[in-house]
Amino acid sequence: MFDHADDEPVLVLSEDESWRLLENTQHGRLVTVVAGRADIFPVNHAVQERTLVLRTAPGTKLAEMAVNEEVLFESDGILSDQAWSVVLRGHAQRLETDKEREAVQSLGLRSWVPTLKENYVRITPTHISGRHFRFGLQPERELGEGSETG
Amino acid sequence: MFDHADDEPVLVLSEDESWRLLENTQHGRLVTVVAGRADIFPVNHAVQERTLVLRTAPGTKLAEMAVNEEVLFESDGILSDQAWSVVLRGHAQRLETDKEREAVQSLGLRSWVPTLKENYVRITPTHISGRHFRFGLQPERELGEGSETG
Repeated sequence: MFDHADDEPVLVLSEDESWRLLENTQHGRLVTVVAGRADIFPVNHAVQERTLVLRTAPGTKLAEMAVNEEVLFESDGILSDQAWSVVLRGHAQRLETDKEREAVQSLGLRSWVPTLKENYVRITPTHISGRHFRFGLQPERELGEGSETG
Repeated sequence: MFDHADDEPVLVLSEDESWRLLENTQHGRLVTVVAGRADIFPVNHAVQERTLVLRTAPGTKLAEMAVNEEVLFESDGILSDQAWSVVLRGHAQRLETDKEREAVQSLGLRSWVPTLKENYVRITPTHISGRHFRFGLQPERELGEGSETG
């Protein structure tokens, strides 16, 4: 899947590839911004028809998403020699009706904090981007700073 | 290390515990905010005297940290039954002088994107917090919504 042209260390992923990575992972981080101040929360996620669904206990992140629905979500996978990262920007919306919640219950999402009340949030993306990194090609400092051939 | 009192699912970590987790991990995510808009970047990190050191290629995150030095950093470790997350808030400062850069070269940091020029950033924390989660105690929906005993 990660076919770097000409040994380039960074591969820009397509939207399809980015979604596939999110579909095959279960956790990431949600970033909210209120009054210019960011917060970040680890979350479980699932993908449903190219939207992202989260489940969460009541608390800061639900409150902050109510104030500013523009959020970021990041997920990554990191090995010793390679890594990928996908960043999704979108609008967060709490699922309020039984019908909305029923539509996501089959996803089997769990909250990081146990909660009986099912607080689901759907992030409708405005932008998704992904990159794959190969670490093996890191130039060594010993090659000399400013060398273009390292 | 993670001794949850009374089977509580969430354990608030001390500053010492939070630093120890950051010392024993190599990667996390940097969040910058410019004009109310957040960005997030995967990064390698090292801890030096209770500051966080990053190495990065020139690009968006260096530019954004120059505009707003207030940043967030998050690192986590996630298993099927438990997870931890540490969030550090602080001021980012690019290391400009040879003396400053020499002080961090022994950390062996690598950038995610190969770079011959050594761009190091030090984050001096204003706040660090950590939590450990146990997933085993998730109440089941079948117990009945609103039950306080589940």
